[in-house]
Amino acid sequence: MMDLDPSVPLKIAVIGAGLVGSLNACMLGKRGFKVDVYEYRQDIRKSNLVKGRTINLALSHRGLKALEIVGLDNSVLCKHAIPMRGRMIHALDGCQKPILYDALEKQSIYSVERKYLNELLISAGDKYENVTFNFEHKFMRLDSTTNTLDFQNKRTGEIFRTTADLVIGADGAFSAVRREIMMKQPMFQFSQTYIEHGYLELCIPPTNDNKFAMLPNYLHIWPRSTFMMIALPNQDKTWTVSLFMPLSKFGELDSPERLSEFFEEYFPDALDLIGKDKLIKDYFATSSSHLVSIKCQPFHYKGKCVIVGDAAHAMVPFYGQGMNAGFEDCLILDQLFDQYSTNTDTILEEFSKRRCDDAAAICDLAMYNYIEMRDLVNKRSFLMRKKLDNILFKFFPSLWIPLYNSVTFSSMRYSHCINNKKWQDKALERAAQVLLVLFLPIVIGLFLMLLYSFYSVDD
Amino acid sequence: MMDLDPSVPLKIAVIGAGLVGSLNACMLGKRGFKVDVYEYRQDIRKSNLVKGRTINLALSHRGLKALEIVGLDNSVLCKHAIPMRGRMIHALDGCQKPILYDALEKQSIYSVERKYLNELLISAGDKYENVTFNFEHKFMRLDSTTNTLDFQNKRTGEIFRTTADLVIGADGAFSAVRREIMMKQPMFQFSQTYIEHGYLELCIPPTNDNKFAMLPNYLHIWPRSTFMMIALPNQDKTWTVSLFMPLSKFGELDSPERLSEFFEEYFPDALDLIGKDKLIKDYFATSSSHLVSIKCQPFHYKGKCVIVGDAAHAMVPFYGQGMNAGFEDCLILDQLFDQYSTNTDTILEEFSKRRCDDAAAICDLAMYNYIEMRDLVNKRSFLMRKKLDNILFKFFPSLWIPLYNSVTFSSMRYSHCINNKKWQDKALERAAQVLLVLFLPIVIGLFLMLLYSFYSVDD
Repeated sequence: MMDLDPSVPLKIAVIGAGLVGSLNACMLGKRGFKVDVYEYRQDIRKSNLVKGRTINLALSHRGLKALEIVGLDNSVLCKHAIPMRGRMIHALDGCQKPILYDALEKQSIYSVERKYLNELLISAGDKYENVTFNFEHKFMRLDSTTNTLDFQNKRTGEIFRTTADLVIGADGAFSAVRREIMMKQPMFQFSQTYIEHGYLELCIPPTNDNKFAMLPNYLHIWPRSTFMMIALPNQDKTWTVSLFMPLSKFGELDSPERLSEFFEEYFPDALDLIGKDKLIKDYFATSSSHLVSIKCQPFHYKGKCVIVGDAAHAMVPFYGQGMNAGFEDCLILDQLFDQYSTNTDTILEEFSKRRCDDAAAICDLAMYNYIEMRDLVNKRSFLMRKKLDNILFKFFPSLWIPLYNSVTFSSMRYSHCINNKKWQDKALERAAQVLLVLFLPIVIGLFLMLLYSFYSVDD
Repeated sequence: MMDLDPSVPLKIAVIGAGLVGSLNACMLGKRGFKVDVYEYRQDIRKSNLVKGRTINLALSHRGLKALEIVGLDNSVLCKHAIPMRGRMIHALDGCQKPILYDALEKQSIYSVERKYLNELLISAGDKYENVTFNFEHKFMRLDSTTNTLDFQNKRTGEIFRTTADLVIGADGAFSAVRREIMMKQPMFQFSQTYIEHGYLELCIPPTNDNKFAMLPNYLHIWPRSTFMMIALPNQDKTWTVSLFMPLSKFGELDSPERLSEFFEEYFPDALDLIGKDKLIKDYFATSSSHLVSIKCQPFHYKGKCVIVGDAAHAMVPFYGQGMNAGFEDCLILDQLFDQYSTNTDTILEEFSKRRCDDAAAICDLAMYNYIEMRDLVNKRSFLMRKKLDNILFKFFPSLWIPLYNSVTFSSMRYSHCINNKKWQDKALERAAQVLLVLFLPIVIGLFLMLLYSFYSVDD
């Protein structure tokens, strides 16, 4: 690919017209490349449901920074996103306590509907003359010697053959591009880990006077230690509720009676808001979904093919960073195109170097955050540390960035976010030791004074 | 599968006629099942080379126990295996020091040629009327609703369709059965990890008077800390030499001069035995191979399909347990057939329960043993521990089984071998603490006596 004429635009095939694929197509289209997007599903703008996907997502700093490149950040934020300032913790007795995400600058994350955002991105791509969307096209194979790609047209069953200088696999956690190209390369590191917990989506309807049934500007959490429920607000005043539990627990709740009892015991306030009949109807209408975490390395194959988004780093949803990390992939690719023009050999190699460790880091952070959300938010030690972090952040804003802030409200590399947190933990531990050493003489002094006064009285 | 008539023999398709597939076919054939073995390669009995595979293997207790079932243990041991009593450590100056594998009972592991053993197993299977080997048949797909299997005949290109009650995937580290069946199941845990080191095979020829160039009853090791070379004896008095190094190091040795210098510096005695010309010829005739470790879970899909051997748990070769673990898979499957007749639902479920953790354990142990072989064997602390282990093993033979013995000379579950070692480490640590507490008063007492005597003299 080194000998490509930089004045001739690249011909790029993007596999997948989901969130990450279509944003990528917009960015590449803006550069004047010839972009063909191939999507297995039908056009989401013409379909009603995105099966097996969560309905809404939490958009934050990294995602917004990427949308900015194609001028979409404001159109998302102003019209169709609901800011969430913090977590609203629901105790067993129905008491609610907020924990702000950013106590200092009051920054929010944004609840946005997947379907709306995906449609917006496809339509934005469609506006470029040099970007074409091909729906219901199944990726079959890539012949990397001739750069030939085969797709099956799902309507006609016919095989469609084309060529591309570069293939971008944005085809999700079960990526065919990853399976057909990356997995066949020697030295391709790969792991897929299913957690023992699954999820199921429910819904809290608006009140009778068509208002939000709970305070809208929060991500509501019912942390119950080994399981949890969360709720994100939607434009139509409904709440998308996700119940996360051990898969075995889903198996146990196999009758309307057991389900009701379970909700009465653990989520009595939510039960009132959902309504018992609706709960039973929605719960038994679907089965629980699995949660998978995928790590791999490298993300590219020569200068010919690269995977981005869930195809490269599917993660459990607990940090709300799946889409944001995927959008940041596009941003980083875009920056590498700025830097290296059409030298895809270097661009893709640098992309793997720059991104693999960070992707693995956010996968790990997402795993950790499930424990924080379902359990730690209930602990005093967690809340005290949060307060201490906020105070230190206030006085040393560039030095002491708390973990959640670095992940959600900054562009700090994910791997650095983890190292940063480790450094903070160590610093606090040291500080505690120093305090102990400083106070020990005082305590001993006080004790001796007490002894002395005791004997003095005796005298 | 629960409703199979136990009086009607199962129809079983074994994919892969390598070591594990053909031993499995023998065991199943012995039970009277209708067994069809499908192998991608041509009949090894008619071919000269097994490309990309090590030429010889170390057979030990677990492998022998499995061969016993089909009456093959003695025919392997007596005729075609060379016992290796221990490691022979080659220092830089050419000094050789043995470390016995089993100082107490003098048990050996056995160097055996892959091709010989594979041929023996295929021929043993061929003797059963109900076992058929189909070579040059590529596994394509399994339709699990109809139990239909498709193969491509590699000579004619034709698709061959058949049915089977049970499919056994013994098709190696890059198993098509695993890819086409297991990988498509939800909750299938999978990881493939390539290590940064590779290997290349060389050869030490016999002496001019056709004798072994080194003491034959040892596995010779040149441990060089970050890399190593090993040699296993062959029937024809040659030695198969494997050089294990970081892949980058192989890249650096890109000229005959650099290669010679490297061998002169690190393996001078081996260089004399191989011969400089032969070394250069053999080294540059092939390129280094990668080393992969594969873990997954479960090993089965319903009562219909199961993977065994490298398909289920490919490992790096440093514990000499790859084949032995695969043979033990066959043995455990055989025991489960004893226990549950033709109830494949239960047999396969129990197989995963019984085997997945152990497979992961031996994969980890194999990774660890590279460090032991290339580095620890040079350390005094390692040799002292080995001596202490041997003493304790002698006095408490059923209580204190050293790690290497438990893995290589027993049928202890691999996961128990690891736990056993952890327990031993902890016990030794405790013992050291107790000794310290016991001896401290004595040391203090001695010190005080010394002080006293010093002052007494002054008086």
